[in-house]
Amino acid sequence: MSALTTRTTLLLNWYGNPYHTPVFVAQSLGFYQEEGIKLAIMEPTDPSDVTEIVGRGSVDIGIKAMIHTIAARAKGYPVTSIGTLLDEPPTGLIALKSSGISSFKDIVGKRVGYIGEFGKIIIDDLAKLAGIDPDSYKTVRIGMNVSDAICRDIIDTGIGFINFQRVELEALRGETVFLRIDQLAGLGCCCFCSVQFIVPEHMLKNPELLTGFLKATQRGMAFTTENPDEAFELLCQSKPQLRTELQRTIFTRTLPFFSRNLMNVERDWNKVTRYGKHLGIIDDSFASHLCYSNQFLPEAPHSDIEAIACCVA
Amino acid sequence: MSALTTRTTLLLNWYGNPYHTPVFVAQSLGFYQEEGIKLAIMEPTDPSDVTEIVGRGSVDIGIKAMIHTIAARAKGYPVTSIGTLLDEPPTGLIALKSSGISSFKDIVGKRVGYIGEFGKIIIDDLAKLAGIDPDSYKTVRIGMNVSDAICRDIIDTGIGFINFQRVELEALRGETVFLRIDQLAGLGCCCFCSVQFIVPEHMLKNPELLTGFLKATQRGMAFTTENPDEAFELLCQSKPQLRTELQRTIFTRTLPFFSRNLMNVERDWNKVTRYGKHLGIIDDSFASHLCYSNQFLPEAPHSDIEAIACCVA
Repeated sequence: MSALTTRTTLLLNWYGNPYHTPVFVAQSLGFYQEEGIKLAIMEPTDPSDVTEIVGRGSVDIGIKAMIHTIAARAKGYPVTSIGTLLDEPPTGLIALKSSGISSFKDIVGKRVGYIGEFGKIIIDDLAKLAGIDPDSYKTVRIGMNVSDAICRDIIDTGIGFINFQRVELEALRGETVFLRIDQLAGLGCCCFCSVQFIVPEHMLKNPELLTGFLKATQRGMAFTTENPDEAFELLCQSKPQLRTELQRTIFTRTLPFFSRNLMNVERDWNKVTRYGKHLGIIDDSFASHLCYSNQFLPEAPHSDIEAIACCVA
Repeated sequence: MSALTTRTTLLLNWYGNPYHTPVFVAQSLGFYQEEGIKLAIMEPTDPSDVTEIVGRGSVDIGIKAMIHTIAARAKGYPVTSIGTLLDEPPTGLIALKSSGISSFKDIVGKRVGYIGEFGKIIIDDLAKLAGIDPDSYKTVRIGMNVSDAICRDIIDTGIGFINFQRVELEALRGETVFLRIDQLAGLGCCCFCSVQFIVPEHMLKNPELLTGFLKATQRGMAFTTENPDEAFELLCQSKPQLRTELQRTIFTRTLPFFSRNLMNVERDWNKVTRYGKHLGIIDDSFASHLCYSNQFLPEAPHSDIEAIACCVA
């Protein structure tokens, strides 16, 4: 165990929420500390700030979706994904059933919310594929706050996650519809929204720290998926404002998407690279294998519970 | 208006909450943008991380209490306060009335929660002043989460703000008592808890940016104090999870403590320096005038509403 001298900074992809439970669990249970890491967790107010802040090396580690990691490299920020937090959380257009939207063509005449610049590109591409006139609907940038924007009547539908904003909107206003983007675009998976741990270039020179970070995170992941009630309670102790029934439901709906082994999936990186080329956000020479590395991952998934069980037996 | 090239990072002192309304208002209304500043707001999960992260220059601007700013310099981080967000928010020991605590001597036999290292020093100093045996009570580090820690029965009382955690605990569990630290310590004001905008040394070479930041923030401050309902709504649009009656109450209770002119108050810096010397966290040679500067403040308070009224008249 090395000395806890300075803090290692981690910038989340959004306000601290159930998505980040494995990290908060690893922090609460001292797993980072056992790796000699004093982790300072920071949260962005605007998720669109994360790529640049990580890219220019102002923080040590960041969390961001796969498609943004690819786009960051295309913009000249040499960030690398060292592991996966969430695998393919289903992403789509969310609307209240009462909006009358039941299929993608129903966006005609409607206000469609999107998260950041790629969301707009994706919506416009889907509309083109569906033969919809781009002037027949209106796009509105609303960040991650799709439920609030629908409740405030700023938009009729918007992009969000099946396990998060859809749950939120249902709790706030009743029955919803959900149109999966991967199905609309014929992608076969929502891997473009997989959530990655990314690092700026200079951190690659510190493999011991990265391996320690991922080992501790993986222990937090095992604890979370094996002891969900205790894990949610630890999250709430760190962030008491999450102690609500809604956040508990979001946590439960997120459990299936946590990446237990944290692996970068080659197939997904290739697929999202192709999708990025189709969308025109990266050029044809872009090589996906530069975007990620599995070399810092712990050798085998480690479960504290199994370890404890072994000791007891 | 200069080009919006890279982001300027601001690290809050806590999760984004009603304390930060003037900043969120200035961001939403484009005041920072008008100064050529693309502001990225980040929130710490653990408020104790902020001093080091700002001190080592990883972010451009931070928010932290006056006593921590002084302690940061004593630790070798050359941070400077360029302005005040909140003036003297009353800080004290919060407890449920049902705990039986009604004066400071009642901490005997109790578990007392504190925020970070200085909180413990302050409690132990108050106990010494009151002639209480230091072994007769137990201290527990609980960060800013005093209400949650009391509800979880981890502590019997803990340090918090009259306008925040006290409001929270009352909403959660009913009648409370509040023992002001400034009164217990005979300080005459809660200025040690005044909340400052602090910057690392290298930022002092960028006076144009600092002045622009403060000018925009001051406009956000004027809007907030003059149009509280609209300001709270703008805060909630940025952070929809704050859209609760409890957060609205906290906002209303915070209104009197916002610093409308953002000035560093010389008297308070001197007083808190003396208190820091008394507590033994800084040595006798420490000079408070190095901790702050008013040179970046806009020349006169600027009110957009007054400006609009003038135009209309």
